[in-house]
Amino acid sequence: MANKLLIAIADGLGDRPINALQNKTPLQFAKTPYLDQLAKEGVTGMMYPIGPGIPVGTDMGHLVLFGNHPSVYPGRGPIEAAGEGMDLQEGDIAFRCNFSTRIDNNVILDRRAGRIREGTKLLEQAIHNMHIEDVTVLFKAATEHRAVLILRGEGLSEQVSDTDPHAPNDGHPFHEAKPLDNSKEAMKTARILNILLEKIYQTLKVHPVNIERQNNNLLPANFIITRGAGKMTKLKPFTEQLNFKGAIIAGESTVLGIGRMSGLTPITKSSLTGNMDTNIKEKAQLAIDALKENDVVYVHIKAPDIQGHDNQPHQKAKAIELFDTLVHDIHKKTREQVYIALAADHSTPCARREHSGEAVPVLIHGSGIRTDHVTTFDEIACATGGLSTLTGNEFISLLLDYIEKTVKLGN
Amino acid sequence: MANKLLIAIADGLGDRPINALQNKTPLQFAKTPYLDQLAKEGVTGMMYPIGPGIPVGTDMGHLVLFGNHPSVYPGRGPIEAAGEGMDLQEGDIAFRCNFSTRIDNNVILDRRAGRIREGTKLLEQAIHNMHIEDVTVLFKAATEHRAVLILRGEGLSEQVSDTDPHAPNDGHPFHEAKPLDNSKEAMKTARILNILLEKIYQTLKVHPVNIERQNNNLLPANFIITRGAGKMTKLKPFTEQLNFKGAIIAGESTVLGIGRMSGLTPITKSSLTGNMDTNIKEKAQLAIDALKENDVVYVHIKAPDIQGHDNQPHQKAKAIELFDTLVHDIHKKTREQVYIALAADHSTPCARREHSGEAVPVLIHGSGIRTDHVTTFDEIACATGGLSTLTGNEFISLLLDYIEKTVKLGN
Repeated sequence: MANKLLIAIADGLGDRPINALQNKTPLQFAKTPYLDQLAKEGVTGMMYPIGPGIPVGTDMGHLVLFGNHPSVYPGRGPIEAAGEGMDLQEGDIAFRCNFSTRIDNNVILDRRAGRIREGTKLLEQAIHNMHIEDVTVLFKAATEHRAVLILRGEGLSEQVSDTDPHAPNDGHPFHEAKPLDNSKEAMKTARILNILLEKIYQTLKVHPVNIERQNNNLLPANFIITRGAGKMTKLKPFTEQLNFKGAIIAGESTVLGIGRMSGLTPITKSSLTGNMDTNIKEKAQLAIDALKENDVVYVHIKAPDIQGHDNQPHQKAKAIELFDTLVHDIHKKTREQVYIALAADHSTPCARREHSGEAVPVLIHGSGIRTDHVTTFDEIACATGGLSTLTGNEFISLLLDYIEKTVKLGN
Repeated sequence: MANKLLIAIADGLGDRPINALQNKTPLQFAKTPYLDQLAKEGVTGMMYPIGPGIPVGTDMGHLVLFGNHPSVYPGRGPIEAAGEGMDLQEGDIAFRCNFSTRIDNNVILDRRAGRIREGTKLLEQAIHNMHIEDVTVLFKAATEHRAVLILRGEGLSEQVSDTDPHAPNDGHPFHEAKPLDNSKEAMKTARILNILLEKIYQTLKVHPVNIERQNNNLLPANFIITRGAGKMTKLKPFTEQLNFKGAIIAGESTVLGIGRMSGLTPITKSSLTGNMDTNIKEKAQLAIDALKENDVVYVHIKAPDIQGHDNQPHQKAKAIELFDTLVHDIHKKTREQVYIALAADHSTPCARREHSGEAVPVLIHGSGIRTDHVTTFDEIACATGGLSTLTGNEFISLLLDYIEKTVKLGN
């Protein structure tokens, strides 16, 4: 009895016919016997994450696949904060940050503080829990020079400008935070942020980590620059609205963070690298285990997107073959139990090296599915599939309906 | 490297199978080797300008194809004004007008003033720049008996009734302008309009042009009747929102006017007649030239729509063959450089002699397109194409995404 749902997401899967691949797409060119088997037995279609010709980021693509309307997108700061496992509250203003090296006259000598790797947790402790007026500061160091800043308090706004002078502007002054509208909330937030950044500078420039870095001829991480302010709005997770348990297995913190915001249990291991060397066997086992505890399990593979951005068609095909293996490994152990869906968050055509607004192929397989005539899983074949064309929200709704987690309207 | 976009629009293209054409549609019946070649190499689909079963006018169909949401449709008056090249300002109230012949007791003897052709520019001068209270009058004579009136001033409304008694009501009184809601703006506008029309009558009935017409036993153009009031709202042209340069090549003032409102450079010549005798070679050359200066070039042919309205299936097929020639002439000189799209503003089935809410076939051809199995460009074949079914707005978004003029949502 199939009453569970496995959704396998190949990041950036969609592509275009490529000369180097005999005018096939990477998905057509790749050897994907299991995906094609599912196509023969299942029903296929095409999906636009939001709509035709609207390119989306990985964060937006997953927000939609995790059951949220695109209009609730909170901005990059809150998504990074969620990805770092910070507990956001409604009204929090979150920023992406860099540790950077500031010298006199407000000049940023290096936007990445010499790509600092060591000691950032100690610097984090010096910043975390600072207070400016009635605002509490939450701060977390992330990978290398990256960090996340949250301002928590009454009457704050995300309408503040970036203080980051942005690449490639090393050697230029950082920007003062300015309100982007005339609200008193934006003015307060900009004022607090400017005071905080100065206080951080005064604190970090004499911090032992930086004294030691300078003694070792390394650039000090004596300042923070901010960008991508966003206000956290409380999402209404589909897991709560429709009363089911879900999990997301991934190697990428952004995807895990959006999953957590959406009510999914994030599951990861250090062997899930988010690239070609990710441990497929381990990921498959985590998914098999998660299906015991959850109604819905998402499993995500990042590699196809990375190869698309790098314009590596053959490598992208190889990444897709990993996806085929991952899906097979999970499904052969669980197929009596689950509906399985194949999806992607967006297209990343190699020729464009960026996300495009083209549709991605999707598939549903399981008990009682209305099998169509399509026998291969790819961008061309699925365009004539039985599901026709769906948005991301529509596709997820259709999937949840198969496991009877939808709500009937009317009586 | 294809980084430009050519959109060829066949007005009223969509039709139905017709007995007189061996049960083919005019598009199926017409010899269109080049359109079919593009179908073999490109991707096809069907497009509803707004949605299934919603017939649209030429103005609305083009408003959508020029990147505007249908909700911004400003009404017929402003569109005619734009078509006549008048510079509309936000808040202007524009009306379509006829020069007409008024006799005593407010009766309109002829709604078209004997289809006046000569002298209307002189009559225009007598009306243009009149002032009623704080309202300025802008007036422009158009073809034959047609004209456009703009009221410009504070606190005006488009909620006023037509003064035109409408065909076939020659011999009946014209109507007093009445407010269509209780707003003081509508009351003011109706009052101003009624005063203006009386002032125009007093001016025109003694105008030398009319004295001479009466001496020649022609009906005087001594009055103006109005219809289709609309308020100009400032559109946000897609050219500005997405930062590209576009042009529209057409023989019809309505299409050119909507193009101009939408940020496109209108390009026309007197040899582009808007009918079967339009100069296809010249139109093609204008498009080829325009592609040098612009990112997006629309080229429009009116003839298929006219033949649909006249229920002339064979002539409609001939008009479509002109479209095939036009597309070939442009594309053979530009195909390395452009994505080309085939589209229509709506269906005009001969049997209906009017626009219908049926879909029209569409096509995209160019670098990296996901070629589908469709090999002919027509209403039946394209219904199984790889693009599935799109709205006009979705189709345009998809096209602009191919030339990377869209904005990614999220990161």
